[in-house]
Amino acid sequence: MKASFGKREEALSNSISKSTHKMLANLWEKKDVPEEGWPEHMIERLLSWLASHDTNNRVDSIPIGAGEREGRVASPLVRRLHCNLSHGVGRSGSLDEIQPKAIGSSMLACLANEFALHSLHVAGISTCKAAIVVPLCTGMSLSLCMTSFRKQRPNAKYVVWSRIDQKSCFKSIYHAGFEPIIVDLVREGDALVTDVQSVARILEERDKQIVCVMTTTSCFAPRSPDNLPAIARICAEHGVPHLVNNAYGVQSEHCCRLINEASTSGRLDAFVQSLDKNFQVPVGGAIIAARKQSVINSIAKTYPGRASLVPARDLVLTLLHTGKRGFIQSLEQEKRLFNLVRRKLESFANHIGECVYEVETNEISLAMTLGTIPVEKQTLFGSILFNRGITGARVIPANVKTITLEDCEFQNFGSHTDEKHGGYLNMACGVGMTEVEIDELFNRLPLAYSSFMKELHKDDRCSCNNLQDDDSI
Amino acid sequence: MKASFGKREEALSNSISKSTHKMLANLWEKKDVPEEGWPEHMIERLLSWLASHDTNNRVDSIPIGAGEREGRVASPLVRRLHCNLSHGVGRSGSLDEIQPKAIGSSMLACLANEFALHSLHVAGISTCKAAIVVPLCTGMSLSLCMTSFRKQRPNAKYVVWSRIDQKSCFKSIYHAGFEPIIVDLVREGDALVTDVQSVARILEERDKQIVCVMTTTSCFAPRSPDNLPAIARICAEHGVPHLVNNAYGVQSEHCCRLINEASTSGRLDAFVQSLDKNFQVPVGGAIIAARKQSVINSIAKTYPGRASLVPARDLVLTLLHTGKRGFIQSLEQEKRLFNLVRRKLESFANHIGECVYEVETNEISLAMTLGTIPVEKQTLFGSILFNRGITGARVIPANVKTITLEDCEFQNFGSHTDEKHGGYLNMACGVGMTEVEIDELFNRLPLAYSSFMKELHKDDRCSCNNLQDDDSI
Amino acid sequence: MKASFGKREEALSNSISKSTHKMLANLWEKKDVPEEGWPEHMIERLLSWLASHDTNNRVDSIPIGAGEREGRVASPLVRRLHCNLSHGVGRSGSLDEIQPKAIGSSMLACLANEFALHSLHVAGISTCKAAIVVPLCTGMSLSLCMTSFRKQRPNAKYVVWSRIDQKSCFKSIYHAGFEPIIVDLVREGDALVTDVQSVARILEERDKQIVCVMTTTSCFAPRSPDNLPAIARICAEHGVPHLVNNAYGVQSEHCCRLINEASTSGRLDAFVQSLDKNFQVPVGGAIIAARKQSVINSIAKTYPGRASLVPARDLVLTLLHTGKRGFIQSLEQEKRLFNLVRRKLESFANHIGECVYEVETNEISLAMTLGTIPVEKQTLFGSILFNRGITGARVIPANVKTITLEDCEFQNFGSHTDEKHGGYLNMACGVGMTEVEIDELFNRLPLAYSSFMKELHKDDRCSCNNLQDDDSI
Amino acid sequence: MKASFGKREEALSNSISKSTHKMLANLWEKKDVPEEGWPEHMIERLLSWLASHDTNNRVDSIPIGAGEREGRVASPLVRRLHCNLSHGVGRSGSLDEIQPKAIGSSMLACLANEFALHSLHVAGISTCKAAIVVPLCTGMSLSLCMTSFRKQRPNAKYVVWSRIDQKSCFKSIYHAGFEPIIVDLVREGDALVTDVQSVARILEERDKQIVCVMTTTSCFAPRSPDNLPAIARICAEHGVPHLVNNAYGVQSEHCCRLINEASTSGRLDAFVQSLDKNFQVPVGGAIIAARKQSVINSIAKTYPGRASLVPARDLVLTLLHTGKRGFIQSLEQEKRLFNLVRRKLESFANHIGECVYEVETNEISLAMTLGTIPVEKQTLFGSILFNRGITGARVIPANVKTITLEDCEFQNFGSHTDEKHGGYLNMACGVGMTEVEIDELFNRLPLAYSSFMKELHKDDRCSCNNLQDDDSI
Repeated sequence: MKASFGKREEALSNSISKSTHKMLANLWEKKDVPEEGWPEHMIERLLSWLASHDTNNRVDSIPIGAGEREGRVASPLVRRLHCNLSHGVGRSGSLDEIQPKAIGSSMLACLANEFALHSLHVAGISTCKAAIVVPLCTGMSLSLCMTSFRKQRPNAKYVVWSRIDQKSCFKSIYHAGFEPIIVDLVREGDALVTDVQSVARILEERDKQIVCVMTTTSCFAPRSPDNLPAIARICAEHGVPHLVNNAYGVQSEHCCRLINEASTSGRLDAFVQSLDKNFQVPVGGAIIAARKQSVINSIAKTYPGRASLVPARDLVLTLLHTGKRGFIQSLEQEKRLFNLVRRKLESFANHIGECVYEVETNEISLAMTLGTIPVEKQTLFGSILFNRGITGARVIPANVKTITLEDCEFQNFGSHTDEKHGGYLNMACGVGMTEVEIDELFNRLPLAYSSFMKELHKDDRCSCNNLQDDDSI
Repeated sequence: MKASFGKREEALSNSISKSTHKMLANLWEKKDVPEEGWPEHMIERLLSWLASHDTNNRVDSIPIGAGEREGRVASPLVRRLHCNLSHGVGRSGSLDEIQPKAIGSSMLACLANEFALHSLHVAGISTCKAAIVVPLCTGMSLSLCMTSFRKQRPNAKYVVWSRIDQKSCFKSIYHAGFEPIIVDLVREGDALVTDVQSVARILEERDKQIVCVMTTTSCFAPRSPDNLPAIARICAEHGVPHLVNNAYGVQSEHCCRLINEASTSGRLDAFVQSLDKNFQVPVGGAIIAARKQSVINSIAKTYPGRASLVPARDLVLTLLHTGKRGFIQSLEQEKRLFNLVRRKLESFANHIGECVYEVETNEISLAMTLGTIPVEKQTLFGSILFNRGITGARVIPANVKTITLEDCEFQNFGSHTDEKHGGYLNMACGVGMTEVEIDELFNRLPLAYSSFMKELHKDDRCSCNNLQDDDSI
Repeated sequence: MKASFGKREEALSNSISKSTHKMLANLWEKKDVPEEGWPEHMIERLLSWLASHDTNNRVDSIPIGAGEREGRVASPLVRRLHCNLSHGVGRSGSLDEIQPKAIGSSMLACLANEFALHSLHVAGISTCKAAIVVPLCTGMSLSLCMTSFRKQRPNAKYVVWSRIDQKSCFKSIYHAGFEPIIVDLVREGDALVTDVQSVARILEERDKQIVCVMTTTSCFAPRSPDNLPAIARICAEHGVPHLVNNAYGVQSEHCCRLINEASTSGRLDAFVQSLDKNFQVPVGGAIIAARKQSVINSIAKTYPGRASLVPARDLVLTLLHTGKRGFIQSLEQEKRLFNLVRRKLESFANHIGECVYEVETNEISLAMTLGTIPVEKQTLFGSILFNRGITGARVIPANVKTITLEDCEFQNFGSHTDEKHGGYLNMACGVGMTEVEIDELFNRLPLAYSSFMKELHKDDRCSCNNLQDDDSI
Repeated sequence: MKASFGKREEALSNSISKSTHKMLANLWEKKDVPEEGWPEHMIERLLSWLASHDTNNRVDSIPIGAGEREGRVASPLVRRLHCNLSHGVGRSGSLDEIQPKAIGSSMLACLANEFALHSLHVAGISTCKAAIVVPLCTGMSLSLCMTSFRKQRPNAKYVVWSRIDQKSCFKSIYHAGFEPIIVDLVREGDALVTDVQSVARILEERDKQIVCVMTTTSCFAPRSPDNLPAIARICAEHGVPHLVNNAYGVQSEHCCRLINEASTSGRLDAFVQSLDKNFQVPVGGAIIAARKQSVINSIAKTYPGRASLVPARDLVLTLLHTGKRGFIQSLEQEKRLFNLVRRKLESFANHIGECVYEVETNEISLAMTLGTIPVEKQTLFGSILFNRGITGARVIPANVKTITLEDCEFQNFGSHTDEKHGGYLNMACGVGMTEVEIDELFNRLPLAYSSFMKELHKDDRCSCNNLQDDDSI
């Protein structure tokens, strides 16, 4: 058999090695998400090629570690789960520095940043010029941005914050060592919108004390995305940085448009998006993006150490799997299915005598009133949905609870406003949802509602302990 | 064949299912690192068992996601690399909260925290009462601690910092929104030690302005671990928090002893250790530990969001692989091999007319003078070692460079002191190093040195461009 | 965090463990291909559960091997690729015996046999009552059957063989120690069909010398599946075993019907099908099936040793992945796409002045004449198709070559008949083919043909070396 | 970051790609087991490189399958477990032919054959000149050899077989279509040795009727390896092929020496060894080896079809993992540990009044008398050892059972002789056994024996049902 392999096979083999190498080299040269997804074996080949660049995987020489941090991995299982890439990303100097011990890991991090930028462009955020993948949640990423703004504004103590009832966003301000100036939203029709005048007034009055204004795009209805262009103009006027929490807004054309408009017509320093919520990867990372590379560099330098490479890797693997085409499809499908969910929810609401809030600019989340459910049973209804396997649907009950976070009191926390309301149900249609799921959702929801109502009426006659037992997990 | 499986096989099968289940249940009940390592297939079984608790892996019901964050993973490869655990750890409220959608992920995070605590006990830090694994580098973890201290000390602006020339530690102060008061070290024999008096004086004078004192244990020679007990007593006296950077100190008996002494005789609020440097896992996580559970809870609540589960998972997988016995062996081996490296380095130094600094309490790092190498060539010597595959060995050249970090000027950055010195070579023996590596290290080091010296003497006669080309990667 | 896990989580965990266990136990009890495919993590759980039954994976006791064959695996990578199942299938006594050291491996083998039987039923072979998965190619499996027939017919020397030009089928006769009596096919319209009369005459004349008659179902057009019912009646009459080569016939309704008819109206002892060709698994296994369990038992006993478990495992994994529904879909799609390929090929043939043979009963393979290509260039055309990435399309050139296999001379080997023909192109539509592929096939085929014809005409004027260089790989 | 990757990194990357490629190219050029084992990531790289040569993994062109066998794999899990290599080995013509569709699979098969040959040389079988890995058990492989001998000896009907009580070896004769002429062993001291005279007489008398003589090397004590050189001389004299069952003899220097001597001083056509028993891979393959390439070619041509690539792959992966050095160590360790087991067993036998048979040339298996256990309880003792987790230890009880295999009657089947004996215990020390296991074995064995004897004596007084319940699994 040895003898039978001849020149023909040799030529074939050379041509195959060349085309494989070319595919990897092309990717590395362009650093763009490929048009079509790659087969899994090519993705694994890329990982293997990159890993071979880290000193501890070298086969041409035996590296000797004489330091305290040598990429050693005790468990073979852990090593495999990290694809032999163990050095993380960054150096103590900066998240975007190349590690001499870990050229391959550094290359993967670089690819991730370029893929992040490319995919933001694909999603429509054309004004974006630089991006970095950080192994941090959205909140920590917002903190990191604020920290990097501190140098420009050494006397600043406050972040002007257009209220969004989501703890991590609020906590990110304290984590960075600042305090919020809370700007309440105003009602416009069903929707809650940014109080632009108040922001303007605060900047006029307190100017130097303000490290940045933080706005939010993606949010639960009936809150609308903030009015980014208006805020951006005010920030530009006063020279105050503008930071945007775009957590799951990549999948919304409207959110992307807001970022573009704000970037061109005013000041928008950096905006942050969650990796898991927009790209269907496990929780753990975010993309910080900006109109200027220098802003990203400054943020990268603020990170005090070396960090996990995993979120960067996951983004690269995912975009190589889907390709540009698959990524676009996921965005288009979200759009299509959101409208489907909206129509189905409206029809259901109509049927049971409730209504769906009109919040035109919110393309991800919906809110349906719960007027037919007694206030004190609304939370219970949420638990029942969870127990029926409907996750992510959230009841915001009408009964006011005051909560205190970091010394601030919030009325009706969860509804983004101190105003009273009648209780409602939030639902979202995020990237990755399928039509089959939606069908099943609107099978279960009416069933859950009607059996809940039946129990409730029994309840009028007797005590309803059995329902209480069913409470959420 | 169907018929041949009888009662005997059925009984065996039942007994096997029971013992497997018992092994998992026991682990979950005790939450201790097992005495002996587990075979890989049992570790994978644990992961599979845990993953089955997350809603998106349920087989008893089909979950319908109606939210914006549903643990969806687009790439099958990414899903596998995460062992189907995609929800991360924590909730927006706190890093240590249970996620109702992800009970399995929450269980794994809980196991990680308990394993972390257990392994610190095993390493000798008996005074430790609570620990949490965070998916953050050491620097970010230190920041997180400072942030959580802020609430107790609302008017504080400064961290008293016993100088250690490592950027991420220094940057962590700024990241948290504070500024350092730098306390220079004092020379004691060869060693650089804590200036306890100065710290005491600062606390007396500025008291309320100080958020905490930060000391460091593990460090490059000739710096010694800080005098934790003395600082702890001063902190107790003034009621100032004391934060310890124990980055890679778990592997040093002396560092562990310092923490115990400080904890019992004074005040030591929290101490931070790197996961990768002590437990041989990929870069990306740290353990924050404390004498009180309440301190850890408060730190966990400070984190603004959900975070990667990967570092927690890696710690659990690694300790299940090594078992308590294997973990102890890795610590004992480090100790034994450190002494071997010390003896070999002393003998080499002796041979070439250099000497090794005496820094008795530093059990991880060594420093050898480089008096025989001209000052302007010292950096080059470091590059040459790297090119010969010796990673982690670091030259600290004698020629003074002033660097500025966050508005602070440092003389001789890298040597932990403004004092002049003659240049030296740092080397460490970290966990995971092997005897074979050390033999090879002391094969290459003399060869590299002697060929370097030969080139150098040629250089006296002619210009030495060829060496310059060889500069570090 | 430890404290936060309460009764609710415990109850959930118990219920999850129960449902997982129930799913596995149900599968083992019923041993049927499940209606719907399983998610991959449940399939891996099954493998892990089975592997835990083999002595070398036991966690309740430490097994001590004191034999020469203990399931030890030196390479961790190999161990993983075998999912910790290393003992193979069978014992020296029989392929279907349970191994006391390897209950889990034995269970998996048993599942494979039951899945094989179930899937044959699903495909329509309702008369089948027993099946066994063997880690042998189709040819070896046919040999194994013949060997097991030998005991009933100690003086037999010959296998009556309805000619099919496929080497492994022919060689299987010699491998089992017999010689063929070749029965040529007869032409019926375009099709080549079984010469039933000749078979009848041979059995009458030589009776006891015949170990069995071997017929074939799936084959390349213009050969038709053999007339199994007629042969079965003749075999029944003379008490001679009837063995059927059903290599890739599971995907053809007609082949399945032939087996059913032959089984009910006459004698059909055993029939063999390839695993890879019908079930989309890697090459290496076959299913031997029969109307009686006793026939299978006798065949299993003939195998002299222990064998690879891999083909059995692959079948189980695949059918768990597709479920019954997915398996049926693959068969239906093959049927639909075959008709599509036929129509497209007829249209193409029409266009270029060729025609497609009418062989109604052949539902997998097609043959198109190559009259427009000079005889001496037909082979070259085949190579060119291969070089254009069209694999599996085969040219049967018109120029007669006589080949000798095991002392038998064959005219026109490849065309199933000594008759002269004008050369033709074979093409098949097997399970797993997709519509996209077919579109691309009928993009490339006309292009390849027309550029081939263009070169050919140039060739009339000059020598055509450039084409010859392009010869097949 | 993009900008920071400069020429230095590019040069490094090129040099790394080159050294990786060189490592693969070197391996393929030399086709030798490397001196040192490879790290797992390089082994996976090799697999990935090979797989990229199969048409269905090509990335430079999209292959279109138009045949019935296109390497399609429905289950992604199965695809991974086969490392994307799905085409198997061989073509219908021969096991050692290159598949044009699957150059990579063919290359791997070729590597396996060369590695097999190389490792036989390393083990000491220097006379071997060709080898082939077959995905068949030892018995099937012996059959395949006999089948290939048939052509040379068309009138032969018998295999002269030096008795070895192992079913698969015996059945292999019938499977190939022959009948055995059984040559009983003769007693020489404790050992059972070949009756050379009888073999000589049979060949003289029946010459042309004999297809081959089959001898065995590795066997259970007190049988000795057959006298291969003597038989080889006789075979040479009469021109009769000589086939050797060397099932697990690669690990025995004596067996290897016998093969060498027989090959040089007489006739030894082919010898067969099990893959799993000598190389610690999962069950499923064997190596057929010979002094001449032509013999192997002829055997390869006999196989009627395409076969699983898995055993070939496993051998390559294993030898790349251990390297030549590791393979030699495994052989040396077996030797050392066998002597340890012998000493421990002798000491135990001595202690309880039994003795170990002296069979000097058997370097793998030992036999200890069981005179102190009543004949009717000997089988029970075997079961008890199994239940205590001692697998592979086998009791050969004294009570004569006559069994019939394929029409032949055997007295005392299992003891290799019709002679009466007093019952004994067989034990083996195979490759892969560890010192820890042996210690534990000789912990358990005395305990099992003494508690068994205690029960037995109770049994004298009362009925002993409890022991009977404990019977083997």
